[in-house]
Amino acid sequence: MDAVTLSMDHDHPGCRPVLRRIRVQSPFIYGLTNYVAATLSANVLLAVGAAPAIGAAPGWPSGFGGQAGAMWVNAAGLINCTAHDMLTAVDAANAAHVPWVLDPVAMGAGVGEYDTIIRTLAARGPAVVRGNASEIMALAGGAATARGVETTASIAQAVPMGQELACSKKMIVAISGPEDHILGPDGQHIIVPGGHRLLTRVTGAGCALGGLVAAVLATLSMESDRLVAVAAVHALYARAAEIAARDASGPASFATGFVDALSRLQNADTLGTDA
Amino acid sequence: MDAVTLSMDHDHPGCRPVLRRIRVQSPFIYGLTNYVAATLSANVLLAVGAAPAIGAAPGWPSGFGGQAGAMWVNAAGLINCTAHDMLTAVDAANAAHVPWVLDPVAMGAGVGEYDTIIRTLAARGPAVVRGNASEIMALAGGAATARGVETTASIAQAVPMGQELACSKKMIVAISGPEDHILGPDGQHIIVPGGHRLLTRVTGAGCALGGLVAAVLATLSMESDRLVAVAAVHALYARAAEIAARDASGPASFATGFVDALSRLQNADTLGTDA
Amino acid sequence: MDAVTLSMDHDHPGCRPVLRRIRVQSPFIYGLTNYVAATLSANVLLAVGAAPAIGAAPGWPSGFGGQAGAMWVNAAGLINCTAHDMLTAVDAANAAHVPWVLDPVAMGAGVGEYDTIIRTLAARGPAVVRGNASEIMALAGGAATARGVETTASIAQAVPMGQELACSKKMIVAISGPEDHILGPDGQHIIVPGGHRLLTRVTGAGCALGGLVAAVLATLSMESDRLVAVAAVHALYARAAEIAARDASGPASFATGFVDALSRLQNADTLGTDA
Repeated sequence: MDAVTLSMDHDHPGCRPVLRRIRVQSPFIYGLTNYVAATLSANVLLAVGAAPAIGAAPGWPSGFGGQAGAMWVNAAGLINCTAHDMLTAVDAANAAHVPWVLDPVAMGAGVGEYDTIIRTLAARGPAVVRGNASEIMALAGGAATARGVETTASIAQAVPMGQELACSKKMIVAISGPEDHILGPDGQHIIVPGGHRLLTRVTGAGCALGGLVAAVLATLSMESDRLVAVAAVHALYARAAEIAARDASGPASFATGFVDALSRLQNADTLGTDA
Repeated sequence: MDAVTLSMDHDHPGCRPVLRRIRVQSPFIYGLTNYVAATLSANVLLAVGAAPAIGAAPGWPSGFGGQAGAMWVNAAGLINCTAHDMLTAVDAANAAHVPWVLDPVAMGAGVGEYDTIIRTLAARGPAVVRGNASEIMALAGGAATARGVETTASIAQAVPMGQELACSKKMIVAISGPEDHILGPDGQHIIVPGGHRLLTRVTGAGCALGGLVAAVLATLSMESDRLVAVAAVHALYARAAEIAARDASGPASFATGFVDALSRLQNADTLGTDA
Repeated sequence: MDAVTLSMDHDHPGCRPVLRRIRVQSPFIYGLTNYVAATLSANVLLAVGAAPAIGAAPGWPSGFGGQAGAMWVNAAGLINCTAHDMLTAVDAANAAHVPWVLDPVAMGAGVGEYDTIIRTLAARGPAVVRGNASEIMALAGGAATARGVETTASIAQAVPMGQELACSKKMIVAISGPEDHILGPDGQHIIVPGGHRLLTRVTGAGCALGGLVAAVLATLSMESDRLVAVAAVHALYARAAEIAARDASGPASFATGFVDALSRLQNADTLGTDA
């Protein structure tokens, strides 16, 4: 594959309209995620003006899965809902042409029963798969390298397998790490630099990014716009982390500053200055 | 109905004793709520000196439902407990004359199976129903206007239906919005102005208010005191939001400042100044 | 029993290496806890450099229970997993010689069915039991004195029963209160002074301490080092609370400052100064 590799940060012209579209459209985003990450995910979505609903109350997976503008499924949500709930939501979303994001949290940590459920979900056609290096490698059929919810593999190891996954399944694969790699179904490769290591010290920060990716999918009318938009969300996430890190005294004040920064980024005329 | 409409803010003499009573009595408040909102709800109750316990561990619904000073049932708690758990808790509360609050989260969002459970709960006699405009309209038998957990209806549309609900079921109905409307079983109508739009950007802020309403119910010996006390809780909530908004850089620092402000309001001699 | 009673604060030489070991080893810690406390627990563990995973997804209790460096079981986790999940995790941990912490949240609150599950867990040999006065008394066979998740008993009442429990079951018993008491299997008695009452106004603060105790257990090669290490974790927790309280405007800003302070304590050369 002869892919073009692009670098894209928050100053890229593709970034500016992304959060503005979310704020103006305020899309209804449905999420099946875990209770450790759910509150931050909801707050990240509310901060940018989206309208999230989370969880598998009776009738919600089939109802909200089809009604939402987009959906995200965080595999660790299996700590508080069933595989059946997830499959019901995914089927409803697919039937209604609602795009959805799959986050294969903790895949490849050596728990076969759990990984099998994620494989079943992945086979139903998510628009985007987002995870860390170990998770993407496991989903692509590689060895188990995760330790609980943390990766032990490097981005460099994961990118070739992620590219193969993206091309063979015709979806976008986003790998989070010291820099993020967004891989397209036709071999596209966008590198998103920046961010901050404190993001890895806040539980659910990766999970919330899955929700935010769903939010941007909901605002697009053309599938061809997805790749740049997904990269833009990663770039804005990285930028908010950099802003938050400037004034943080530790991971908790960082988390507060991060959500605040995301809420202000959408209003910024010039993202590069204060935002 | 020829109702008297009153406006009541945090300077109203009915507000001052409300938080003081909670702090002095430290009532045990039992809650069945959802994992997205649970942490904030517990922290709001702890901030004002109440003693919350949340969730449906084996034996808790029947045990804590009857032991608590008051209880709140948040319908979105169905993402992490069963309808049977909720009904068991409600029956235990009713048997022990424990007042309880029902929050019909996401009612009227087009999921019939879910709405039916809420209707069953509502038929068991909550002391207070608290929700947004769409939820109250749906519970009163109106059309489905919710989008997930968000309202698309206006307060003006909801008030007449809320009044009918309050009078026919002999309970208090509290509708949250740009201004809050507290409706009594005999046609009373209290409008609570103030608050801040950032409250709508913090997940679970409405849910936590349901817990706080339960806390104040637990401190009252006479049912006739409930209406003003419920309005007072809304007025103090609005006041804490205004205080928090002054120094907020976004919704996350607002949420921190909001809980802090609630904890300080209870100690204030003069709520109007710094509080 | 003729126990030696020691007082140990954060300046004790046993404190310094504790957090450094966690940071360097970054142990994988598995937790079964409740959704009210889960996010704070994960963030506390991430703040000190541990790698937590929480919850009972399919296959996790048996898989992660045996893979982890240590585990903690918070009884109120029964609001979101089954007793079977907890027993499976405990059996897997025991089979793999993974030490685990039991937190008997809300034991002794008058719910027999719930207390029985905790007794079954306790009989499987936790390395450490950590709780408040009422919980420890209930687990030791005393009367029910809890009110929901809060204690109504005093430390003075709980210590003798905790000592008996520690000696008869050959485990460490840690009782949290205005000062903490760490009781060893051979009659050792360490008192940890300090801390701050605001810790009792943050939901899950005690629960997160259970996770932190598990993290330190994971870093020790010798069982004989456990008692001082458990006391050290309590002393550092108390110190972080004191630091956070200095700048707090209420319980929410306190919670933020507390996690931040924990993250900085691990890097401090001199814990006594700014830390």
